[in-house]
Amino acid sequence: MIIIGEKINGSIPSMKKAIQERNEEHIRECARKQAAAGADYIDVCASVAEDVEAKTLNWLIDLVQAETDTPICLDSPSPDSIIAALPRCRRPGLVNSVSMEGRKIEKIFPVIAGTRWNCVALLCDDGGIPFTSEKRLAVFRQIMQKAEACKITPDRLFIDPLVETLSGRETTLAVFTECAREIRAAYPDIHITSGLSNISFGLPARKLINQAFLVLALNAGMDSAIIDPTNRDALGLARAAEALLEKDEYCLEYIQAVRSGLIGPLAV
Amino acid sequence: MIIIGEKINGSIPSMKKAIQERNEEHIRECARKQAAAGADYIDVCASVAEDVEAKTLNWLIDLVQAETDTPICLDSPSPDSIIAALPRCRRPGLVNSVSMEGRKIEKIFPVIAGTRWNCVALLCDDGGIPFTSEKRLAVFRQIMQKAEACKITPDRLFIDPLVETLSGRETTLAVFTECAREIRAAYPDIHITSGLSNISFGLPARKLINQAFLVLALNAGMDSAIIDPTNRDALGLARAAEALLEKDEYCLEYIQAVRSGLIGPLAV
Repeated sequence: MIIIGEKINGSIPSMKKAIQERNEEHIRECARKQAAAGADYIDVCASVAEDVEAKTLNWLIDLVQAETDTPICLDSPSPDSIIAALPRCRRPGLVNSVSMEGRKIEKIFPVIAGTRWNCVALLCDDGGIPFTSEKRLAVFRQIMQKAEACKITPDRLFIDPLVETLSGRETTLAVFTECAREIRAAYPDIHITSGLSNISFGLPARKLINQAFLVLALNAGMDSAIIDPTNRDALGLARAAEALLEKDEYCLEYIQAVRSGLIGPLAV
Repeated sequence: MIIIGEKINGSIPSMKKAIQERNEEHIRECARKQAAAGADYIDVCASVAEDVEAKTLNWLIDLVQAETDTPICLDSPSPDSIIAALPRCRRPGLVNSVSMEGRKIEKIFPVIAGTRWNCVALLCDDGGIPFTSEKRLAVFRQIMQKAEACKITPDRLFIDPLVETLSGRETTLAVFTECAREIRAAYPDIHITSGLSNISFGLPARKLINQAFLVLALNAGMDSAIIDPTNRDALGLARAAEALLEKDEYCLEYIQAVRSGLIGPLAV
């Protein structure tokens, strides 16, 4: 599972405070811990007003890069902010995210076309998140046409089929897994990703729903997640699911993760 | 998910000791706690020498029935011990278990034929546990023929497709889920069950493997498990998976389980 570490995001209250107070050590620690926990990308999202976003993003990128070589996942609602921040990154990473909503894809795909940057693409459009898998897959095909036009190969795309809240729509997992299975069958090399927390919004004991979703999504072909890699329980279940799903020969990665203390019971 | 509470089993060291010492309070407490945690059946397995088994089983059954009305799951390698213990149970329960190994099925099916007792059936035979789903499904069909001959309807059967250890056989989940899907498709009203611990034998942090297996098995059509119902983490993930899999309308059972304190974070 390709892990996109989600913690450096200004929409998280403690991180918002750290960004406002320019608390460098908090941000450095978040970068360090996520890298040590096995993050493949470190998401960097400022969540500040657009006029100060470029400056804030650069400051965050520099802090992360001072701590780790783990590639950055550039995250902003503004394509211009993302494009401005690309050259600040020492190595190609991941753009989070485009979709068929607005003109973000038209701006970003041509810029990353000739690079080694990858991109997260969400299956929504100007009408919002389609209810049915058929309509989401129609959005997917539109995205793939845009990618093909820019010669962005499927292995550079991280498709997020999106989940609605389970409390609002009982079929949310079924729609996600139908999309994931179809996409995986059509493009064996593409990546499929998701965040974990939307699905449990409004329900109690949300972690249980998030963790069960993670296991079921991996079963449907998801191979990436936007999560907190220091969340031992979620990571542990994901590694266990991968071993059960024959994605971890001889359980070597699972056993290694337990031995290195990333998952499993904490030593007393 | 139909829960078969596994704790009153003489093969568990603390329970073995309680049985040897005739520690009635320990056994009563195990019955009480499992019933309170939502067990649908309480497994009773003496794991003692056959000459004292009938007496020990009767003693255990009386203790459980003094605490709860939850039906008993009679568990013994000896069909004669099971048959002898049936009349001691105040209400029909579950026989654990028959298979195509030996002549247990020939002894037990005719005895429960005209009753309201249900039965767990394992997909193994005198050759052991078949490696492939095809061969396990052949055993399944033999069992169904025997059941039909005794007019035991599918809704009275709990089929355990069996799991080998993941560390010994990478395909163990795939074989289980193939069996479960075929059986569920052919018999919508049948029950499918499993224990959780065999699959993780020999691996570290076994609970992670067991819990991920539980979620993936429910996804494949399992609707019962032989577990410790007081294991909040496993039960919580199972209830969450059922909500995600549209087996719990409006998440009502999930929310109720959290509210009644059976799953989710413990109040501080």
